[in-house]
Amino acid sequence: MLKIPDHQVAGHEARVGKLGPLIDDSGRFYKPLQSDKRGSEEVAFYESFSSNTEIPEHIRRFFPIFYGTKVMKASTGAEHPHIVLQDIASSRINPSVMDIKIGARTWAPESSEAYVAKCLRKDRESTSVPLGFRISGLRVYISDELGFYKPHRDAIRKAGPDDVKLLLRKFISSNPSAEMETDPDCSLASSVYGGPDGILAQLLELKAWFEDQTIYHFYACSILFMYEKGLALKGASSNAEVKLIDFAHVTEGRGVIDHNFLGGLCSLIRFLSDILKETTKFTVENGQVEPEESGLI
Amino acid sequence: MLKIPDHQVAGHEARVGKLGPLIDDSGRFYKPLQSDKRGSEEVAFYESFSSNTEIPEHIRRFFPIFYGTKVMKASTGAEHPHIVLQDIASSRINPSVMDIKIGARTWAPESSEAYVAKCLRKDRESTSVPLGFRISGLRVYISDELGFYKPHRDAIRKAGPDDVKLLLRKFISSNPSAEMETDPDCSLASSVYGGPDGILAQLLELKAWFEDQTIYHFYACSILFMYEKGLALKGASSNAEVKLIDFAHVTEGRGVIDHNFLGGLCSLIRFLSDILKETTKFTVENGQVEPEESGLI
Repeated sequence: MLKIPDHQVAGHEARVGKLGPLIDDSGRFYKPLQSDKRGSEEVAFYESFSSNTEIPEHIRRFFPIFYGTKVMKASTGAEHPHIVLQDIASSRINPSVMDIKIGARTWAPESSEAYVAKCLRKDRESTSVPLGFRISGLRVYISDELGFYKPHRDAIRKAGPDDVKLLLRKFISSNPSAEMETDPDCSLASSVYGGPDGILAQLLELKAWFEDQTIYHFYACSILFMYEKGLALKGASSNAEVKLIDFAHVTEGRGVIDHNFLGGLCSLIRFLSDILKETTKFTVENGQVEPEESGLI
Repeated sequence: MLKIPDHQVAGHEARVGKLGPLIDDSGRFYKPLQSDKRGSEEVAFYESFSSNTEIPEHIRRFFPIFYGTKVMKASTGAEHPHIVLQDIASSRINPSVMDIKIGARTWAPESSEAYVAKCLRKDRESTSVPLGFRISGLRVYISDELGFYKPHRDAIRKAGPDDVKLLLRKFISSNPSAEMETDPDCSLASSVYGGPDGILAQLLELKAWFEDQTIYHFYACSILFMYEKGLALKGASSNAEVKLIDFAHVTEGRGVIDHNFLGGLCSLIRFLSDILKETTKFTVENGQVEPEESGLI
């Protein structure tokens, strides 16, 4: 039983007659191969990554599991090749999701002039150049009755630095709404961004790897934040999780770190640290998320 | 007694009838104000930085001391305004010097279209885009008889990633030469790049600050490496020092880290770590330069 995933917040969406990802009941996600070289390059990345023994296990968990490719009936009804991946939201109920494209630059050095010009324009018009990342989409669970707060794509596309700051706060607030432009309550900051298993701790793990790894450069790749507000409101773990997705523009690192991704990641980490500092007792010390008191011991 | 400094490896050089920096006997460096807004912006940066109480002292030492501005007889013979700075090489004998422009992007977000296009071309043609930094110039002391190894500006401008790797090794070798394209001995790696006072340790201090500071963004700014081979060969400290110079394109950080500078700095750190790992017993652990043995204790 294939269906259209409802947790997607950015990228191509399947509709009647339109090519887009599908999911099944067994926890698999089927992403149609893009017809240009992006499709084959994403497959090439997944094949390389899944067989690369230099990737530590604690890093591998940030990537969807790859199950190969499959020609199958697409959302358009026609046969089409798909990348078969783990559906990273399959075991979740009403996940809140944010998709953040990392890096001030979304084009690889060897790209064509036309592609550089196109990406550069988008990078300058969005917050990619000023902040080192841009939000591509988000949805935040409100309640079973009210559903989700999900800003319109056009609003997200026009978001400036202050809007991004606000969206990162709305994402962990009990009361997000389109109107509210000031003072989201950030009531879930400590359970989603903070703590030893929170999003910030996971980003710091990724950062340590990016300071060292020279295997891949991840252009136009996204970091996905996911958590469950339903659980968090009950006092349970928010099940906060970070995943990397979208690898159509990954290139070989050739002995050089991915300074473009790393810089953007550090900028994002700084934004989340600020929110935690202002709203909770967590603070970042020596690359670790610590309760503030620990500094006094 | 004003004279033309001989330790300069990049930027404008004073010649008869040509505007360039001068030094005096009292340890001051006179940099002619550039006539466009670059001059006034560099002065504005020095004024802001020197009076900013949020700059920690251990970071302040990476910047030349600022003594104000002065209208004086320039290297051309005419009166011209100058920025008066500490001559960071005044107490040195035959310093080996390398000038590295940091950041994949040398233009600020608010730059004009023409300026962006000009910088982007240079950034793509050089190693700025692929490596996150480019070498702007260097000179390495050989001996009193042979003087300095100083590659021609054109050769430096054309340097690709492999050339940069080689120049970073030649810089701390006893035997640099234009011909030698393989296997510089890196005999001074541990005394210049390594150790608790070496260049890598200083860069790691800078990195920690750049992960946190959101006051300034340093576009087209250079990191200068300096050391004294004469001392190192005698078994004394090489007096290795890192300085930041060239602040004509510094902008306000506005609450965002300088992810462009930080990414390039991390890339440079990775290159030096590699050289140390291959040639010495030093290794980088948890943001510190450590003798490799310490991991075994």
